[in-house]
Amino acid sequence: MSTIKTVITGTGSFIPANIKTNKEFTGLNFYGEDNQKIATDPQEIVDKFKQITGIEERRYADSDMDSSDMAAIAAQNAIDDAQCDPESLDQIIVAHNFGNVITNTIQTDVLPALASRVKHVLKIKNPNCVAYDILFGCPGWLQGVIQADAFFKAGTAKKCLVIGTETLSRVIDMYDRDSMIFSDGAGASVLEAKNSTATQSGILASSVQSHCMDEVDYLNMGKSNFPDSDPRVRYIKMKGRKVYEYAMKYVPQAMKDCLDKAGVDISELKKVFIHQANEKMDEGIIKAMYKLYGIKNVPEYIMPMSIHKLGNSSVATIPTLLDMVRKNNMVDHQLNDGDIILFASVGAGMNINAVCYRV
Amino acid sequence: MSTIKTVITGTGSFIPANIKTNKEFTGLNFYGEDNQKIATDPQEIVDKFKQITGIEERRYADSDMDSSDMAAIAAQNAIDDAQCDPESLDQIIVAHNFGNVITNTIQTDVLPALASRVKHVLKIKNPNCVAYDILFGCPGWLQGVIQADAFFKAGTAKKCLVIGTETLSRVIDMYDRDSMIFSDGAGASVLEAKNSTATQSGILASSVQSHCMDEVDYLNMGKSNFPDSDPRVRYIKMKGRKVYEYAMKYVPQAMKDCLDKAGVDISELKKVFIHQANEKMDEGIIKAMYKLYGIKNVPEYIMPMSIHKLGNSSVATIPTLLDMVRKNNMVDHQLNDGDIILFASVGAGMNINAVCYRV
Repeated sequence: MSTIKTVITGTGSFIPANIKTNKEFTGLNFYGEDNQKIATDPQEIVDKFKQITGIEERRYADSDMDSSDMAAIAAQNAIDDAQCDPESLDQIIVAHNFGNVITNTIQTDVLPALASRVKHVLKIKNPNCVAYDILFGCPGWLQGVIQADAFFKAGTAKKCLVIGTETLSRVIDMYDRDSMIFSDGAGASVLEAKNSTATQSGILASSVQSHCMDEVDYLNMGKSNFPDSDPRVRYIKMKGRKVYEYAMKYVPQAMKDCLDKAGVDISELKKVFIHQANEKMDEGIIKAMYKLYGIKNVPEYIMPMSIHKLGNSSVATIPTLLDMVRKNNMVDHQLNDGDIILFASVGAGMNINAVCYRV
Repeated sequence: MSTIKTVITGTGSFIPANIKTNKEFTGLNFYGEDNQKIATDPQEIVDKFKQITGIEERRYADSDMDSSDMAAIAAQNAIDDAQCDPESLDQIIVAHNFGNVITNTIQTDVLPALASRVKHVLKIKNPNCVAYDILFGCPGWLQGVIQADAFFKAGTAKKCLVIGTETLSRVIDMYDRDSMIFSDGAGASVLEAKNSTATQSGILASSVQSHCMDEVDYLNMGKSNFPDSDPRVRYIKMKGRKVYEYAMKYVPQAMKDCLDKAGVDISELKKVFIHQANEKMDEGIIKAMYKLYGIKNVPEYIMPMSIHKLGNSSVATIPTLLDMVRKNNMVDHQLNDGDIILFASVGAGMNINAVCYRV
């Protein structure tokens, strides 16, 4: 029987040129959640930060560039890679958390939605190309992929452009150590519905979870750690320890569930593209996942990591990482036809998702 | 052959108690886009406004209530009406344009997404209940319905809660006459996948369009009309004339396309639930739609209107209007089993959608 396969036919990304090194944070004064100045030497804080997160530097967008601008560049890149006519797209799905934040404002602008702006920049006239945004925390891009897959199966679309874009540099509290984690970037993929008689490639399974009880505020908008700051102006805030414990508790099992649904043996898995949140956490997750299969040693070169140089750009980490590996821009990592890979993400909501895919 | 039918099994709404009458705007000073004070007497401006839009009064949320709070109340209301176990929901889809805007800030807060917060307030523990937000301008709620329908057809969900919620009172520029249009509110529906052998009711067809060329900024975020206002602080702005012309050009045809897809004869149509944007515009749209069928006179009582008392609450207008009519809270309007109805919306993006439904 012929069925529909959801195939990634092109990828693209936009990585801002401005590098912000860890060193640039050593001159800052960090405050705790209690608004007290942290006594530890900033250099020591930065060193410890690097040790845990793996982040050496991150990228910030130019001040005249918005999240939707980056998204459009990544999108054009993916369209070129897929060699598809942009007018043939049925959907443009843009994932983000903060929309466009004009430099030196901290106001989110999502009117119109970023997908409308991307469609505008790409000059797509076809009115049947439906453009919308999805908010699902860091797993937003992967959730867009899962939605596109559903639209293909329902027969309501055949070609979707899914983008993740974020300018986190504009919503960080510079008095908060966590500000060092976040970065800017955009990644995009073209997905197409193919007949299973025509291709072996495609999505094999997906799994999604939302935990919104105690977990609802593990990532949230809160006031600056700086004493007497304006309480009405709010920034991205993270309960780092809680996020870590949450991810370790649920993500490995969600990844295994996805592989089980796909009927894939763990030995067949070639690569894991995991949300670049924190190196230690990502290593912990993959170790725990293999442990669920009774495997003690994680295979070498299974998990490409971009976090050292690119930081955590939320929805953009997985699509940019995929683009880098697909285009052989990552040492020790390449993809071959037939390879089985797993995508996995976790973030605000809290939300978790995973997609198992055959290249 | 048995197929899947997408059935609305419950509706709910939250209409804030605070009434803001037109009279309260007569003491304001209005400025034009050119930052010049409008010489016309405010009373005359308000009278003309009422004549065109039909709006006599609108509702504003209490200062301690956020968009997600209103959404949760409307949602609980819809769940009660559907007599469904909230833990059995597969998806919570929340449409909005501005997220939570805490009173006296103009900062959008969508971290976490409003759907996560609604799930939190509803105390839904089931991790397989996936909660996400969609941004699609005013047609966002109806687009959520269309997405739920696709998930049902794809077999990825069986029960979805779709909510539209907005606190536009917190993003309006009080120096702009258009501020009088906007209001606050939330509406929700429970949708369930039913077997076509078990019900005649359900979605018959849908149509969607996105026009993002010249139309992309017909609704946007811009600075206050007041001279020397902070250009970094932006408000909802509308090119009213452009929106009107756009809607008249495309919406009637999109509505007809939807009816044609459904195979419904115009004589069978019982009610049209149209986005409450502007009375004159809505009347113009429905007249033009009937004209496409060669019908000169629009049938009486075809189009329930809530705009006079509730204003334009964006994504919330259609689900609240549906809830009012379903619960017999609207004079001269009721729904009976088997009635064929049409939903239609237009808004920022610009986006248009329509859904044809058998009650």
